[in-house]
Amino acid sequence: MTRPYNFAPGPAMLPESVLKQIQSEMLDFHGCGWSILEASHRGPQVTGVMTELKSRLRQLLSIPDTYDVLFCPGGGRMQFAMVPMNLLGAGTLSTYIITGAWSKAAAKEALRFGRVQSAFSGSGNRIPADEELEVIPETSYCAYCDNETIHGIEFERVPVLKDAEAVPLVADMTSNFLTRPVDVHKFGLFYASAQKNLGIAGLAVIVLRRDLLGLAGTEVPTLLNYSVYSRTDSVPNTPPVFQLYVANLMAQWIEAHGGVAVMDEYARARAKIVYDAIDAMPEMYVSHVERESRSRVNAVFRLKDEALTALFVKEAAEAGLANLAGHRAVGGIRASMYNAMPIEGVQKLADFMKTFAHRHGRTQSAVN
Amino acid sequence: MTRPYNFAPGPAMLPESVLKQIQSEMLDFHGCGWSILEASHRGPQVTGVMTELKSRLRQLLSIPDTYDVLFCPGGGRMQFAMVPMNLLGAGTLSTYIITGAWSKAAAKEALRFGRVQSAFSGSGNRIPADEELEVIPETSYCAYCDNETIHGIEFERVPVLKDAEAVPLVADMTSNFLTRPVDVHKFGLFYASAQKNLGIAGLAVIVLRRDLLGLAGTEVPTLLNYSVYSRTDSVPNTPPVFQLYVANLMAQWIEAHGGVAVMDEYARARAKIVYDAIDAMPEMYVSHVERESRSRVNAVFRLKDEALTALFVKEAAEAGLANLAGHRAVGGIRASMYNAMPIEGVQKLADFMKTFAHRHGRTQSAVN
Repeated sequence: MTRPYNFAPGPAMLPESVLKQIQSEMLDFHGCGWSILEASHRGPQVTGVMTELKSRLRQLLSIPDTYDVLFCPGGGRMQFAMVPMNLLGAGTLSTYIITGAWSKAAAKEALRFGRVQSAFSGSGNRIPADEELEVIPETSYCAYCDNETIHGIEFERVPVLKDAEAVPLVADMTSNFLTRPVDVHKFGLFYASAQKNLGIAGLAVIVLRRDLLGLAGTEVPTLLNYSVYSRTDSVPNTPPVFQLYVANLMAQWIEAHGGVAVMDEYARARAKIVYDAIDAMPEMYVSHVERESRSRVNAVFRLKDEALTALFVKEAAEAGLANLAGHRAVGGIRASMYNAMPIEGVQKLADFMKTFAHRHGRTQSAVN
Repeated sequence: MTRPYNFAPGPAMLPESVLKQIQSEMLDFHGCGWSILEASHRGPQVTGVMTELKSRLRQLLSIPDTYDVLFCPGGGRMQFAMVPMNLLGAGTLSTYIITGAWSKAAAKEALRFGRVQSAFSGSGNRIPADEELEVIPETSYCAYCDNETIHGIEFERVPVLKDAEAVPLVADMTSNFLTRPVDVHKFGLFYASAQKNLGIAGLAVIVLRRDLLGLAGTEVPTLLNYSVYSRTDSVPNTPPVFQLYVANLMAQWIEAHGGVAVMDEYARARAKIVYDAIDAMPEMYVSHVERESRSRVNAVFRLKDEALTALFVKEAAEAGLANLAGHRAVGGIRASMYNAMPIEGVQKLADFMKTFAHRHGRTQSAVN
């Protein structure tokens, strides 16, 4: 049976070669005699996987030694609490650039720990220009979401905080992590959960400037303190071993496919195919996202005739294009295209969009 | 190649049949077309797994409806913080029965959130009698560790808090969860991480009395709040899907093997074999644990001639008995024998102990 192209927003598609490797070594990891699922987190197998993964991530993103790479259990959302708990320090104010649902949720969580200022508050259809951002130098940090998966908008470049250049910039890169190079020096911290581009759910990667370690107070739970992960090489207790193992396979896969600059080329190529299809059939498909803010990894669009949405999702699934329904909060269609999505999958989606328009759309003349 | 008997304390041995099932359905979960690793946490595959798992746990442990069953990412150690953050409520005092390293660590973590009283403070070689426990009725809860994996001591029955019967009892069952029936009604809450008896690292199961929900303050991070897990059916964000899937396979395996009463019989049978071997060769092996406190799942002992410890571990590994070294904090030997450990593995260990004693021990006459 041919595997469908899975456009799910995460947990997402994995390369078949990675799945096959997991399968082939499930009972015996590299000849040690037992499964990676049974391997001690203090033994050579898991230590080896973690060392390799960290070194691969450092290499792929050119992470300098002044930054630490940490692995935490849970997803990106746990970082919504860990960031303020660790970075507020003696301060009480944090700043959030609110572009959509995820940055909004992060800002809301930060309110548990201090005051929160909005540097920008958008309605989910565009990324602000630097001139629009209001950030005061006294804030402990300024956080934003590099790609809003639900709305399908993405920062094309790292925002510049005018008059507040010293404020640590924090980015949630959950959905576009490892899909392009990152200018690490511009950040105080960035993080991503693994289940979009680096494997499976249950793991987050945190990259942070070492001088931001050690700011958490005694009221912060041990396992929510970045310093504890730093000090223990991310093994303060048993880590999610299997997620680390899959992440290492994915990092290896990205490496073998040319690294993050190549991932960016693929991401742009995939995005172009889908957005070109949308733009070519305005009588059928419509995107509410400003052109310059369009995400390379989550193409969000609607059918002009909303009544056709469910049919689109159903017929696409039957054609081997799975999980195209938009997020339940916004509806419509969402094509999530992370590192593991082949160009052919997206080409097939564009072809399907044409056929669907042909079959179900009102004709051009009828529209005019 | 024959798989070794893996006596690791967790992550631990899994049944070969479970590993083979994971392997066989790695690329296509029950004909859905994709791997469980790629399945959406809101889709029917994962929802099905979670519903099955919860219902199996309810069945296996006879958990009444007045109790909730929650799944949290991370291990048992995250519960060291979640318990006080959720159960202190308006109170400031919690009580811990300190029997070894894990209860001590839990008590230490609770100090971040309030005052902590010791109901008992032991040195790791025995379980206290009820008469020794000092608990005042004003405490928010009383916590203990049902089985101390490092020291190898286990509560044979649930402690009774005299003069404080209304105080919610909290048990860390990380290492003996699902190895015997639990009288759920006696507890306010109990929890266990999955990597000993219910699968792999990265998941904790929490069973709590529903009236204890809703006590957490606004300063508690969303993802450390039991009420949030309760309200969302343990899907407040993307849960560790693979861990839930493996836990469901293990719950199914326990079910198929007769349930927790049968697991208890096996645990007792395994423990008897090892402890009988220790007791039969006092010139060679010694246990510092009081007889009535001996754990069914972690047999901790030492070689009388400590210089032989490393050799014992090495030769055992060569004989297919892996990971028998004691915890780095206490040294010696530890045989961890969770649900997946076959009786034959333990029998082989006992045989090895005899052979080893024969080869390396001083003879009985030399000792006398």
